[in-house]
Amino acid sequence: MSDNSIYLDHAAATPLDARVLEAMAPYFTELFYNPSSPYQPAVEVRRAYEDAKDRIAHCIGAKGDELIITAGATESINLAFSGVTGHVVTTNIEHDAVLQAAAAHEVTFVASDAHGRISAESVRAALRPETELVSIQLANNELGTIQPIRDIAAVVREVRTRRREAGETTPIFLHVDASQGIGYLDVNVARLGADMMTINSGKIYGPKQVGLLWASRSVVVKPQIVGGGQERGLRSGTENVAGTIGFARAMELVTATQKSESKRMADLRDSAERALVTAFPEAVLSGHRKHRLPNFLHISFPGIDAERLVFALESKGVLVATGSACAANKGTRSHVLTAIGLDPEVADGSLRLTFGHLSTEENTKQALEHIIEAVRREQERMAR
Amino acid sequence: MSDNSIYLDHAAATPLDARVLEAMAPYFTELFYNPSSPYQPAVEVRRAYEDAKDRIAHCIGAKGDELIITAGATESINLAFSGVTGHVVTTNIEHDAVLQAAAAHEVTFVASDAHGRISAESVRAALRPETELVSIQLANNELGTIQPIRDIAAVVREVRTRRREAGETTPIFLHVDASQGIGYLDVNVARLGADMMTINSGKIYGPKQVGLLWASRSVVVKPQIVGGGQERGLRSGTENVAGTIGFARAMELVTATQKSESKRMADLRDSAERALVTAFPEAVLSGHRKHRLPNFLHISFPGIDAERLVFALESKGVLVATGSACAANKGTRSHVLTAIGLDPEVADGSLRLTFGHLSTEENTKQALEHIIEAVRREQERMAR
Repeated sequence: MSDNSIYLDHAAATPLDARVLEAMAPYFTELFYNPSSPYQPAVEVRRAYEDAKDRIAHCIGAKGDELIITAGATESINLAFSGVTGHVVTTNIEHDAVLQAAAAHEVTFVASDAHGRISAESVRAALRPETELVSIQLANNELGTIQPIRDIAAVVREVRTRRREAGETTPIFLHVDASQGIGYLDVNVARLGADMMTINSGKIYGPKQVGLLWASRSVVVKPQIVGGGQERGLRSGTENVAGTIGFARAMELVTATQKSESKRMADLRDSAERALVTAFPEAVLSGHRKHRLPNFLHISFPGIDAERLVFALESKGVLVATGSACAANKGTRSHVLTAIGLDPEVADGSLRLTFGHLSTEENTKQALEHIIEAVRREQERMAR
Repeated sequence: MSDNSIYLDHAAATPLDARVLEAMAPYFTELFYNPSSPYQPAVEVRRAYEDAKDRIAHCIGAKGDELIITAGATESINLAFSGVTGHVVTTNIEHDAVLQAAAAHEVTFVASDAHGRISAESVRAALRPETELVSIQLANNELGTIQPIRDIAAVVREVRTRRREAGETTPIFLHVDASQGIGYLDVNVARLGADMMTINSGKIYGPKQVGLLWASRSVVVKPQIVGGGQERGLRSGTENVAGTIGFARAMELVTATQKSESKRMADLRDSAERALVTAFPEAVLSGHRKHRLPNFLHISFPGIDAERLVFALESKGVLVATGSACAANKGTRSHVLTAIGLDPEVADGSLRLTFGHLSTEENTKQALEHIIEAVRREQERMAR
């Protein structure tokens, strides 16, 4: 990244933490062995791999052998849906990976409120006797809105108990897509009440194309990639040793700084929010006021073309997103902004600013000056 | 890897080439952007990613957008089988990934000969009117035997033409698992006559958990991982930019040295073979005498326990495999050695020596001294 640019898109991708790269480095070169090989150096590589899984598991209050290491969140989400034969309940503001995986099933999409929040009661209302999976994101990747996972888990648990007491054998599980929010929220699986959880290393300053599905022992996961029988037969292929060791280091680092970074992010974000709302009282803030990731700021400038804004800002070295990276790429309006009922004219003027490791008070201040100037210029252009 | 150890297991895993790591490094840190992001630095990352795919494709005589980047060979193989609804023909000496992927279908396993070679005529005899896929390895991962892919491709093409002329609509495709042999063999897809091909970066001094499926435009591939629609919708998930750039560099490097390394490997392997056969005239060499990868030496010492041998050698710093890494891990007898009809007593005394970048004349000579000494000691122990 150029020294002059100011990166405000940490929800799209994060740079590898230097300490993560340092942890991975030996496993690229001198410790390159196939963990399935029989000789001692390879056995040590296997041990380091298992140890990394244990360390990741520790961060979420689970056991290492309950983790299935995948090539990122998308594969993990697909795997979470693999064992389902019946009905699925999810929301209309999930990531594309969940929406697409759900589409292969009979599915009910629960509607979010105007702040991107899903109520446990609306999930309850969507459940059917044949519902096998409820899949809800921990936090929304466009708005940062945090979902009431514990309340939703309580509903799922209640239904499970009721079914058991009635002698019904249809299982029901809660999958939590925690692709956003790791490092800022409590992700202890027992406290959340989840049965499955997806985590993505590439969003937490770890290597890309590494992720995991945590699945409690009661969940049936059907392997999608078969072969050598790695990951307890649930995901074959020679293990991603370096990637998993990097993932573990990244998890430990963001877990250790959860409190301080959450505070630092909220301060930066709140100051940015104040500055922008003061400059543009007509601006629309989206995402839940209270239940929102501390590093997310979603703001719309009605009547402005956000894509033009992104390019104008880029010329000043300020890198921000319009909606999500995925939606931006397709040139279609974000399904999340449509779902929360944002007026198209407002939605099309939306920026998503996501703060992170690369953010400082100084560069946030600079970025705000550029943003305010660029929005003013666009407004003037539109008024002409 | 310890400076004192001698690595003779290049078929199980290869160390990352320093030049590959150098090519990848910027994409871990300063060029970490999500290739789907709209701003210029991310667009440049996308360009570098597409360029890497083009460069890999160039090495196999294909186009970059015909490649689907995967998390290694196993995922690629599973993807190759994904579009099949009818009958499959493969062999009884394929890698576990092919055997397992095939098991989900109606399948005929063609038997190899005693040298691990599959004849085109035996493939022809196994074909049925409803056969949709023929999946044959380029070279066997335990014996190094090279398969007559061009002859098999001719059979498949003949059947395809006959079906077309008869107005039949059942497709038939040839998938080549080229996990072993890249860097030593011609892998031009047109010259091979393949419709799909699997390649694994981790076996050619590139990063692990990176691979690809090349599929000609006529092949129907059904995505196994859905979501953001990356890789032309055939494999979703944020692109593995650093991994693919490393893969491309690795492909270019092994392609450039194909001739010289093949010669160097054959010289080392042949000298090792001579030394071992001279010392142990009762030893059994497996794999085809002529059609064999230049870096493979499969040798059995009847009556010896190869696992004990591996541990004895390890104590001298010599790292070799018994059969394949996968089979070794499971503690079961190799299905390949069973398939070629090797007497169990002979099979259980088998070592697979695979040479590569880390092999030199000097360390090969040292390794041979250790192997000869260790086999003698084991023979003496058995004779007592």
